[in-house]
Amino acid sequence: MTFSLHTPLDMHLHLREGELLESVLPFTAKAFSAALVMPNLKTPITTTALALTYKEQILKVAQKRGCKEFMPLMSLYLTAGLTKEELIEAKKQGIFILKLYPKGATTGSESGVSQILDEKTLEIFALAESLGFILSIHGESNGFCMEREFEFLSIFEHIAKNFPKLRVIIEHMSDRRSLEMIEKYENLYATLTLHHITLSLDDVCGGMLNPHLFCKPMLKTRKDQQALFQVALKAHPKVSFGSDSAPHLESAKLSAKGAAGIFSAPVLLPALTQLFESHNALDSLQAFVSDRAIEIYQLQAFAQKSITLEKIQYNVPERIDTPLGAIVPLFAGQNLSWRIKE
Amino acid sequence: MTFSLHTPLDMHLHLREGELLESVLPFTAKAFSAALVMPNLKTPITTTALALTYKEQILKVAQKRGCKEFMPLMSLYLTAGLTKEELIEAKKQGIFILKLYPKGATTGSESGVSQILDEKTLEIFALAESLGFILSIHGESNGFCMEREFEFLSIFEHIAKNFPKLRVIIEHMSDRRSLEMIEKYENLYATLTLHHITLSLDDVCGGMLNPHLFCKPMLKTRKDQQALFQVALKAHPKVSFGSDSAPHLESAKLSAKGAAGIFSAPVLLPALTQLFESHNALDSLQAFVSDRAIEIYQLQAFAQKSITLEKIQYNVPERIDTPLGAIVPLFAGQNLSWRIKE
Repeated sequence: MTFSLHTPLDMHLHLREGELLESVLPFTAKAFSAALVMPNLKTPITTTALALTYKEQILKVAQKRGCKEFMPLMSLYLTAGLTKEELIEAKKQGIFILKLYPKGATTGSESGVSQILDEKTLEIFALAESLGFILSIHGESNGFCMEREFEFLSIFEHIAKNFPKLRVIIEHMSDRRSLEMIEKYENLYATLTLHHITLSLDDVCGGMLNPHLFCKPMLKTRKDQQALFQVALKAHPKVSFGSDSAPHLESAKLSAKGAAGIFSAPVLLPALTQLFESHNALDSLQAFVSDRAIEIYQLQAFAQKSITLEKIQYNVPERIDTPLGAIVPLFAGQNLSWRIKE
Repeated sequence: MTFSLHTPLDMHLHLREGELLESVLPFTAKAFSAALVMPNLKTPITTTALALTYKEQILKVAQKRGCKEFMPLMSLYLTAGLTKEELIEAKKQGIFILKLYPKGATTGSESGVSQILDEKTLEIFALAESLGFILSIHGESNGFCMEREFEFLSIFEHIAKNFPKLRVIIEHMSDRRSLEMIEKYENLYATLTLHHITLSLDDVCGGMLNPHLFCKPMLKTRKDQQALFQVALKAHPKVSFGSDSAPHLESAKLSAKGAAGIFSAPVLLPALTQLFESHNALDSLQAFVSDRAIEIYQLQAFAQKSITLEKIQYNVPERIDTPLGAIVPLFAGQNLSWRIKE
């Protein structure tokens, strides 16, 4: 039995740099047509030049590793130093995603914005709106960890109201209370990860502590997980798939200061196919992993690619070895019932 | 500047066995007059004979390590196999604490009770009541991790109502909604740990993940922490101090299946003194760490011991070395402003 997806898209992806990039890219580049690449590198992607250099690196690695027809969609890191000229230049060069991190919210957010609604940032939003940018936001307050996304909703609301032509994305939606907000504002959208629709805080610390499932935003309650899963299953028109696959070395995860992020790239399409199939929703998967993103991000035609999955057991590796050390993927050691046909 | 405490008591303590017991006991035995020792060893303390043997081991180690006048108060593990005869025998031998773990709730709870309100267990409760036992309960449901104590309150209520002469302890109270319950039932009491009055879930996973602060019951919200802290500061008449100090090797904490438990024994009295002093509540500390326990548990006179703290900086070690490996204590590497006078 096989199942095919046309131009699957991952609208939120961490690819890292150097040897790590080489090790993790093929998992995405072989399974997806394109991916929106996050800019929070050690040297943050704060300029068009940096974004284009990074894009070249990614394409070079893809070619070297034999990954055909894969398109990295680049994003620009919104820092306090971002100028209007830089934003105009980015648009000219085909970059149309602006990524906002509140300072300190997650891995690599040290360069983020501390005053999100100050005059300077609002001016950037206004220009981004007029240029046709999409504003992707890691929306978390600095409050109690389980309430951060909810507490940030008022900022989403403020931006959505004041910049009605600016498309704003609630990245990696994790709290069911965010759903109301995307229903309320026409220009507000969201991405959903595999882990937020399948796991809850109980999986991190309900039994023994599992640092491999620690991520930001935190996995929430079972009710949140179930509500978000329903959104995915029906391929909600305002929600696209974005894995937030975020590789960290095992040594950085199993530490007294454990890194936040789940490396899901090796399992995404097999796990989604299994999930949707088991809920009699395979018909919606094409919309969830591709069509919605094309609509929401108004993506232009890019290289076509069909991915075929076959219903053959896939043993998820316990570890992915890289020159820097091992990375433990999501669902490590588990058996999935679908795998990607080579 | 010095401050003295008379017969400090730790009413909830994990001492482990063998080499680990030798390594961890002195921290408690030098600072406290007595401690209520938990029975969830690898070979659970399910009989009077096991409890008495364990008590002897503890006293032998205390003597060997030069810890004078320390009294371990033994508890009996309530398993499905506990007989009435055993309970009667325990009481004869001076054991008056019965500890109930719901099966699977935490470290070493595999022998716990799965049907807490079945006929057989209720009969044990009735006998425990008539014999004058105290019933200490790790009160957590198997629901969502942040709601487990709250969901268990109905069981506390049922037991408190139906066995009005049985003193029941909500061990390591972590949820502010439990406070109502101890106000409502005369025979319902609680113990409080240092970590639940000073930390919240944010300290575990609000920034980077800190496995050393992972424990059961889970640290809750800042509101819970603050409410419980107020209870401690005023030395609430129905609450005694119980550290739940629970040593685990560093290797077991920094693991893909991280162990639950915080090793607080090395810092308890210095940290409590600093905390109470900084809130102008030093006057209540004697009641919180000793008098309340004597009243609630109706403790008989035991060896008197005065502990003097001096206001001299105490650098909490990063690690406590044991023959089995290192253990990372609570507040590792931090400076406290009080230390125990040798």
